[in-house]
Amino acid sequence: MAYPIALIQGASRGLGLEFCRYILKNKSPSAVIATCRNPDRAFDLRGLAEQHPGRMTVLKLDVNREEDIGAAADRVKESFGRLDLIINSSAMLHPSGKGETSLRDVSAQGIISTLTTNTVGPLIMAKYFAPLLQKGGGGFGRQPAERAKQHTGIIVNITAKVGSIGDNGLGGWYYRMSKAALNMATRNLSIELARSRPKVVCVSLHPGTVNTDLSRPYHKYVPKDKLFDTERSVNYLMSIVDTLNIEKTGKAYNWDGTELPW
Amino acid sequence: MAYPIALIQGASRGLGLEFCRYILKNKSPSAVIATCRNPDRAFDLRGLAEQHPGRMTVLKLDVNREEDIGAAADRVKESFGRLDLIINSSAMLHPSGKGETSLRDVSAQGIISTLTTNTVGPLIMAKYFAPLLQKGGGGFGRQPAERAKQHTGIIVNITAKVGSIGDNGLGGWYYRMSKAALNMATRNLSIELARSRPKVVCVSLHPGTVNTDLSRPYHKYVPKDKLFDTERSVNYLMSIVDTLNIEKTGKAYNWDGTELPW
Repeated sequence: MAYPIALIQGASRGLGLEFCRYILKNKSPSAVIATCRNPDRAFDLRGLAEQHPGRMTVLKLDVNREEDIGAAADRVKESFGRLDLIINSSAMLHPSGKGETSLRDVSAQGIISTLTTNTVGPLIMAKYFAPLLQKGGGGFGRQPAERAKQHTGIIVNITAKVGSIGDNGLGGWYYRMSKAALNMATRNLSIELARSRPKVVCVSLHPGTVNTDLSRPYHKYVPKDKLFDTERSVNYLMSIVDTLNIEKTGKAYNWDGTELPW
Repeated sequence: MAYPIALIQGASRGLGLEFCRYILKNKSPSAVIATCRNPDRAFDLRGLAEQHPGRMTVLKLDVNREEDIGAAADRVKESFGRLDLIINSSAMLHPSGKGETSLRDVSAQGIISTLTTNTVGPLIMAKYFAPLLQKGGGGFGRQPAERAKQHTGIIVNITAKVGSIGDNGLGGWYYRMSKAALNMATRNLSIELARSRPKVVCVSLHPGTVNTDLSRPYHKYVPKDKLFDTERSVNYLMSIVDTLNIEKTGKAYNWDGTELPW
């Protein structure tokens, strides 16, 4: 069987970087394609690539630029011809880094930027990379015995529990909108990509509140034992990925594997 | 008691125009502020204004332009000082008018335009008009006896059943994402605007499949008796508005008054 290939989008730091580390360490043989906006300045990522010679490819990809996404997909197609897993990891609270906690803070330009990165980016990733996932070897997840139900690839969209409309009891953080729309993208993709063979699984995963730049404004609301470092969060999420198959597609899962309401 | 004042956004045609007609006809005395992108070309709307002298104000407002929204809010503040109801009616499937039924049709620019009109527009409307709704007389909806629970204003966001993630069994129509995000906006607004007095109710309403330009691509999937004309749909929706109060805020309702899943 061919070795698994994973593409991690938004890999220069935080969860994205940790997903690269995890796969290189725990999944061998495998290849990791790490994308980020500015590879020249992604020192941690380049360090990781040097530690794993021949296993890692770093590509420039700004998820806000459709042409970048198309060009990266062309590169992956030429070099690998297939893909087993994509994790869309990059996200922001707001262009300023400070989320809108009330209507007063909201601006059209700010929310459009957030929607573009958090929602439109992963959708456009799916558009260009789905054909490669349809040629994948199904190297991630848990394949059922029945051949007709086996998947060739998996798309993971990193969502957030605050993106659950039904779970929203506190309000604030208007960036929730981008994650609700992303969950709809997940749902829609899961249906479209499971209609016929080859099948691609698509899920949203909530990483918990992770100690990264993005979540900093939330930290004060989170009990210390629920503020995860990236390693712990990625361990949880990859445990979920290990169980994924076409029966589990089209849903949002919490870090502990439980299903999140829409 | 002061007469009720309603603002209908996207009033030049379709549902928006019909909401104006309905309120002018069935709610008297009342005033209607009708907004649209191009009042000079909104002949039906201007005809309606002429039939109801002194009751209707037509304002230019492109929901994609935050400065338009701010300027319209200033005008309403000067002329009326308050507002009892806003209905955000304008929406699109895609800039081309043809919705994306599969991933192949999706483009970043197209989905960003759709999100801007359908999702960001109503949110920015709330930002500028919420202060006027907080000064409203509560002239729409059904007020409870208990004074502390009475509302001063109502925001209605016209959603679509296809915007329900849980109800999405068919996929396609990526414009669903804009309505899922709008539903999150509704939910978030309902929480923020109910926290203290004065209270503003905010709901999403699904008009059914209505015989308008927007829904034309759907018509073939809809049994004839479920394809509503705008008058029928607005009758249903205004019956729901008549029952709204703070207990019913923060939800999405179908045209028949039943609650929609998120």
